[in-house]
Amino acid sequence: MAKITPRSQDFSEWYLDVIREADMADYAPVRGCIVVKPYGWTLYENMRDYLDKRFKDTGHVNAAFPLFIPMSFLQREAHHVEGFAPELAVVTHGGGEVLEEPLVVRPTSETIIGYSYSQWIKSYRDLPVLINCWNSVVRWEKRTKPFLRTMEFYWQEGHTAHATHEESLAEVLRMLNVYYDHMREDCALPGFRGRKSINERFAGAINTFSVESMMGDKRSLQSCTSHDLGQNFARAFEIKYLDRDNTEKYCWTTSWGLSWRLLGAVIMVHGDDQGLRLPPRIAPIQVVIVPIFRNDAERSQVMEVAEPVCRSLKASGLRVKLDDRDETPGFKFNDWEMRGVPVRVEIGPKDVASRSVGLARRDLPGKASKSFVPQEGLAERIHALLPEIHASLLKQAEDFQNGNIRECFTWDEVREAVQDGWALAPLDDHPANDERIREALTAKSLNFPLDQPEGEWACVVSGRKVRERALIGKSY
Amino acid sequence: MAKITPRSQDFSEWYLDVIREADMADYAPVRGCIVVKPYGWTLYENMRDYLDKRFKDTGHVNAAFPLFIPMSFLQREAHHVEGFAPELAVVTHGGGEVLEEPLVVRPTSETIIGYSYSQWIKSYRDLPVLINCWNSVVRWEKRTKPFLRTMEFYWQEGHTAHATHEESLAEVLRMLNVYYDHMREDCALPGFRGRKSINERFAGAINTFSVESMMGDKRSLQSCTSHDLGQNFARAFEIKYLDRDNTEKYCWTTSWGLSWRLLGAVIMVHGDDQGLRLPPRIAPIQVVIVPIFRNDAERSQVMEVAEPVCRSLKASGLRVKLDDRDETPGFKFNDWEMRGVPVRVEIGPKDVASRSVGLARRDLPGKASKSFVPQEGLAERIHALLPEIHASLLKQAEDFQNGNIRECFTWDEVREAVQDGWALAPLDDHPANDERIREALTAKSLNFPLDQPEGEWACVVSGRKVRERALIGKSY
Repeated sequence: MAKITPRSQDFSEWYLDVIREADMADYAPVRGCIVVKPYGWTLYENMRDYLDKRFKDTGHVNAAFPLFIPMSFLQREAHHVEGFAPELAVVTHGGGEVLEEPLVVRPTSETIIGYSYSQWIKSYRDLPVLINCWNSVVRWEKRTKPFLRTMEFYWQEGHTAHATHEESLAEVLRMLNVYYDHMREDCALPGFRGRKSINERFAGAINTFSVESMMGDKRSLQSCTSHDLGQNFARAFEIKYLDRDNTEKYCWTTSWGLSWRLLGAVIMVHGDDQGLRLPPRIAPIQVVIVPIFRNDAERSQVMEVAEPVCRSLKASGLRVKLDDRDETPGFKFNDWEMRGVPVRVEIGPKDVASRSVGLARRDLPGKASKSFVPQEGLAERIHALLPEIHASLLKQAEDFQNGNIRECFTWDEVREAVQDGWALAPLDDHPANDERIREALTAKSLNFPLDQPEGEWACVVSGRKVRERALIGKSY
Repeated sequence: MAKITPRSQDFSEWYLDVIREADMADYAPVRGCIVVKPYGWTLYENMRDYLDKRFKDTGHVNAAFPLFIPMSFLQREAHHVEGFAPELAVVTHGGGEVLEEPLVVRPTSETIIGYSYSQWIKSYRDLPVLINCWNSVVRWEKRTKPFLRTMEFYWQEGHTAHATHEESLAEVLRMLNVYYDHMREDCALPGFRGRKSINERFAGAINTFSVESMMGDKRSLQSCTSHDLGQNFARAFEIKYLDRDNTEKYCWTTSWGLSWRLLGAVIMVHGDDQGLRLPPRIAPIQVVIVPIFRNDAERSQVMEVAEPVCRSLKASGLRVKLDDRDETPGFKFNDWEMRGVPVRVEIGPKDVASRSVGLARRDLPGKASKSFVPQEGLAERIHALLPEIHASLLKQAEDFQNGNIRECFTWDEVREAVQDGWALAPLDDHPANDERIREALTAKSLNFPLDQPEGEWACVVSGRKVRERALIGKSY
């Protein structure tokens, strides 16, 4: 049986052990980079396909922009270059020659896409432009951790241009909700939609929104961000349109991104001491069939049932694996539990006789997870079970998250709360206050949730009267 | 009406004009790079999805490897580094510091994947490894042309490892056939499967196979390649396995790739003076509905029919666009012809009265393309028509290709044939002969087709007796 560190003993080691033992990713021979192995990549592809469909359903189309960006482009938006300059990978040589102008490997594509938009957009009739790209970007990171912080990471970046700020802000919030729905409905991940503090805004944005989710160690993961870029990039790249009134105006632009970090969240929110627990919609394998036998006679008897069961489940649209390896059932149970397969079907000689199967669900512990059901109608039963497993994973995560957030109204309460969870506390959105929280508590203001009760309170740092509360906690 | 250069007048200008007017791609502000616009990218995605399914159906899985490769990795396989060194983009700075070892932006991933395989493969039980990656690679090119030759290009690269040469060679040919089927059945593109000459092998391969297709200007496009890497990369990266007989052996590896060049082939093979003609399976829009009216009364009368027709076609699984723009029907006809939409449905006041529609297919010229059909049963009719359009495009391309290949047995015949088509001629596979063809004819030996008649002939260059004939022609 594969050995992994217990989750409660060392969460960070547990995380790395699960990634290794579930065969999701490996370290690459390039500092800060990882190789995503087929099991991990299939999970990423499944998540990507659901999210891509949501983008298309909201009127977006995909396109592709270059990997390289001229250094001078980054410099056109002052805050943008200031934010990204320390993290750049720079190509100085190409085709055996020194380049006249160094090329940056894209850390994000606002600048080069801004250039194209300035060429494409002429009139109000061309608006809005609603484009998304699936690609990888590079940011030089000192410390890395698979999926959570890697030098090269895969993500999508959406870039839109609009005629008015009203429209662009609506887009920013629309995409925040698309992410939120994707997380809940496809990945069984709860979270809080909110506005980031001034200090935590994207470099070049006038406002940044995020979804923050609580991981199994009670730290937060910023799962995605959606940026209101105002007219900053439109001015830097001359993205203008001729309006109905025949005057030339700057566009309002947005960008929004979600990366393979979310795969890290799936591991950290749902996993347990036996390994992954994958939400059924995105699981690479939804059902594993384990035949149980002690000798060749039993083997052929059992396989005669297991094979048609496998075929009928596949034909019903399920992603199914029949594990006919030459290993013990115990080994196989552990292996598929490690990989987080939502449903296990066991078929032994007794099941053959009674025309039943053993059914085990990965989301529940111990005996509650197991039952015996008839072979007849198995596909329908499993199709009905999968949404139940999804709902159960989401509820467990939501209960855990809500159970570890405390409403606080004083600095002392906040200090205590962030030792073992999050605080929800009145906060004056000022960089000095963020700084104080970071230094004194090694925590961050995560975001100001969009759903706020009415009220006025004293900021827990400055004492100034405010109307908003922030989530405060340790974060990835 | 958009102006494009006639195809017969200047094929190269025509190609660039079509790409611009059909809104497929744009030049990027980085030398040698392009931006693929939504219409072009959707076409690429459709092609990718069909090919990806074929890979999965033949037992392959996707994964992701890093963008960057340490320079020292490329140097481990002598021919490989010699072939790629002149084309590399090199990252020398990262995170504000000079790197100890420069990183190469991958031109192809044999080396870094070879390293991972050497870590992953221990025993014969781990074989075969059948992995594919969808990504982009960078090769510094002096002259660029959208899709055909760009510094950064999107492609897929498959990398497999096997226990025996028999198995790896079977894989090389299996994937060549997967490509061939994808081209014919999804893209309506004919071509010739064959072995490349020694001179034209991939850097580090012991044998390279390709599919060569004739473009509309009678030049060849090498649409894809499949490489038998022998044990070259296995030795360079120590990819070894413990065999059943308890001895350690080197693996046999393969790689195979198909890029967005194939999108260029779709344009160049099927396009005409009106623009693109897209095969129905991969067309971003399969059916466009153009309402025809002279005033608001007619407009609302026509739209009352056009909208439910659009909904019913969509519901049947077709990709449909109802063009309700404020433009003339003539403008719309030209616009959608330029974009190569396979089927156009026209609905005017007379059609409303007669419960019929005008139906125009893009694959046939003039009057043959048009008919009037009842509104009832339209979806079924179009579903039956699309494979017919596919077959018609494939046949036109195949007739053109076959009609422009001449069997040749002397140098003079070859010289004449390659002025306006391809030669199929006996050729001794020796670099000196390739060189002579290149210098004297500005042509290439394209490949030695797998389907060869039995026989023995004199090589058209050296006079030496040979048993194989090569396709010879000008190429991209």
